[in-house]
Amino acid sequence: MLSPQIVEGLVKDRAAWPRAQVSLVLLVLDGVGDIHHPDFGMRTPLEAARTPNLDDLARRSALGRIIPVDHGITPGSGPAHLGLFGYDPRQVEIGRGVLEAVGLDMDLRGGDVAARANFCTLKDGIVVDRRAGRPATEVSAQKVGSLQQNVRRIEDVEVILRAGKEHRFAAIFRGEGLAEGVSDTDPHENGEPIRKAEALRPEAAKIARIVNEFHRRAQEVLAGQEPLNAVLMRGLAALPHIPSMEQRLKLRSCAVAAYPMYRGLARLAGMKVLEAGPTAEEAFRAYARNKDRFDFCFIHVKGTDAAGEDGDFDRKVGVIEEVDGALPIILEARPEALAITGDHSTPCCMRLHSWHPVPLLLHSPRCDAGGQGRFTERDCQAGALGTFLSMHLMSLLMAHAGLLDKFGA
Amino acid sequence: MLSPQIVEGLVKDRAAWPRAQVSLVLLVLDGVGDIHHPDFGMRTPLEAARTPNLDDLARRSALGRIIPVDHGITPGSGPAHLGLFGYDPRQVEIGRGVLEAVGLDMDLRGGDVAARANFCTLKDGIVVDRRAGRPATEVSAQKVGSLQQNVRRIEDVEVILRAGKEHRFAAIFRGEGLAEGVSDTDPHENGEPIRKAEALRPEAAKIARIVNEFHRRAQEVLAGQEPLNAVLMRGLAALPHIPSMEQRLKLRSCAVAAYPMYRGLARLAGMKVLEAGPTAEEAFRAYARNKDRFDFCFIHVKGTDAAGEDGDFDRKVGVIEEVDGALPIILEARPEALAITGDHSTPCCMRLHSWHPVPLLLHSPRCDAGGQGRFTERDCQAGALGTFLSMHLMSLLMAHAGLLDKFGA
Repeated sequence: MLSPQIVEGLVKDRAAWPRAQVSLVLLVLDGVGDIHHPDFGMRTPLEAARTPNLDDLARRSALGRIIPVDHGITPGSGPAHLGLFGYDPRQVEIGRGVLEAVGLDMDLRGGDVAARANFCTLKDGIVVDRRAGRPATEVSAQKVGSLQQNVRRIEDVEVILRAGKEHRFAAIFRGEGLAEGVSDTDPHENGEPIRKAEALRPEAAKIARIVNEFHRRAQEVLAGQEPLNAVLMRGLAALPHIPSMEQRLKLRSCAVAAYPMYRGLARLAGMKVLEAGPTAEEAFRAYARNKDRFDFCFIHVKGTDAAGEDGDFDRKVGVIEEVDGALPIILEARPEALAITGDHSTPCCMRLHSWHPVPLLLHSPRCDAGGQGRFTERDCQAGALGTFLSMHLMSLLMAHAGLLDKFGA
Repeated sequence: MLSPQIVEGLVKDRAAWPRAQVSLVLLVLDGVGDIHHPDFGMRTPLEAARTPNLDDLARRSALGRIIPVDHGITPGSGPAHLGLFGYDPRQVEIGRGVLEAVGLDMDLRGGDVAARANFCTLKDGIVVDRRAGRPATEVSAQKVGSLQQNVRRIEDVEVILRAGKEHRFAAIFRGEGLAEGVSDTDPHENGEPIRKAEALRPEAAKIARIVNEFHRRAQEVLAGQEPLNAVLMRGLAALPHIPSMEQRLKLRSCAVAAYPMYRGLARLAGMKVLEAGPTAEEAFRAYARNKDRFDFCFIHVKGTDAAGEDGDFDRKVGVIEEVDGALPIILEARPEALAITGDHSTPCCMRLHSWHPVPLLLHSPRCDAGGQGRFTERDCQAGALGTFLSMHLMSLLMAHAGLLDKFGA
């Protein structure tokens, strides 16, 4: 049995908790981890940043590193966060369509099937441009609006569309008898016809029919509007059935996240999403205001990842310093256990998510405080917590708050 | 496949061992690991202790840390020791009744079913005190004696009782056709009637009947003797079927342990338990006297854990220093490989078992000696062996004695 499952059986009944309600905080600086590279003076943004509050906290905390999914594996945001939330990301699959819908803040429900969709250019029945010339987001959004107006329902199935960036949009199909297990209509290369959606298992027969009919009607609506004259779909998927944080770990959970994708991932895990402004200070205040209503709060800061993907070292440093400046707001709320880490690394020199281990700081009265070291890649590597898979982090956080029973007698 | 199983297939035939017989030693200082906490001056008992012999050995040894069961999981003594003995503690379950019987040094055999039992107070058919007012151990022991005299046999099943502390005792049922899979009679809270033992699978029908009859006869014997006028049972279980150390690893194994629980756990793994006095010196001499009869010796020192659970830092230091003083007795016996570690941490500031990694010292002519560092939490964290699950320790110990073949060609 894997540790995440063992832990579910060890969570104490609330009556046996040290307090009737505790406050655990998981502060995720997206993509915060970096690497030492000559292009950036062989130091990382965490090393370069001036972080007096983090420095002080680090000395009173246990440090370590997490590996998002497994050694050498670069995670997408979905698996990376599932791991942080204590699921085994190697076991839970989130379909592309689900992530897309969730990332556009759509209200995806159990039984729905969601698709990643985009406009394409069709000529004589052949897809000549799978991205329809990368239209401006506004142009594409206007077409999505017109599609939505014309195709609200197919048979008894409701069709819900939302525009994304450039040629991208997402579709949700809602009705009785839908199930995932249908092939892509996207041929995945130019010069091919649009594929028929095919049911890969009998339960998916209806959604395949609906998807094909949607394509037919979309081409009617878009006729003559080259280069956006047809649509393609892929990653058709339903919400995965994952037990909520409360079901698994007895934690009434909330999330503070400015970006739709992370709000959606939090909702997948059964968290209540709190409203907050986009700054670290606003996010941390939202936690502090609401801490008595929840046992666990996931706080997501996006800026570190965005700066890493832009290769913008100084901006990444700036986001870290902003977080440091606002950190006292969390500390003054006195959570029983606080973890600060990232969902993965996004090295500035790579401008991409990576597989590199991610620094971790864990603070609680039961932590093995190092007495020295900063919240940096190198000091965390030497920390008492060691390096481990991120799916174990929730176990450690709960252990540090006194919420887990012994395993065996 | 998990490492413990891989290793079983790699153990060399005795004819290929470096010597016809080797001596591996696993010295377990129960609960020795601790954490740096302001209440105890930010140092651990291992750091505070004066340990010239351990210090000298550490410089000539490889250091590291073990994690008992998994990250963030606090182990009971059963899983913690199974891990040290090279079993995967996540796969082997030891029932509460088994551990209780074994912990009272009872002779539990294959086919027996054992129960954790205690006296309770029954009034008008309702359990008003599940612990019968926590009677003095002598009072309870006398009642166990009277129960045993009156209930020696039910049908063809032998009933064997032994008193524990206060209200607690253990029962073994021995006879044909018994199997585990029967529910507790303990209602787990006051104000409820005693529950009927129920067979949770067909094979457990007989033991359920025997247990219920035992309760009826116990109430006859105890009638009018409030507050000890009835009994409750839970954790009814049979010995797990685990292959012995010799079957798995070809090691003729012995144990030196002063406490019944650890003698029992050693017997579960097929070790021969040697007699010895309670001090470290006596334990180590028992090993030295017997080393030529066995390939592997598990030596258990309880004092470190007991001191940790009492929050008694100085006593924990004292036990470590006592071990250090006696250590030359082991070293002079020149074991081929020696591991010194704990089964888990028991931080003085927590007064409980914990999940924190445990220091490990491994000495053999094949070890990657650090040349510096003491047997402390911090120095072991930086050691050449790294941090790993305790179930891998036996593999490492055997590898260091040259007992394992290559994996693959």
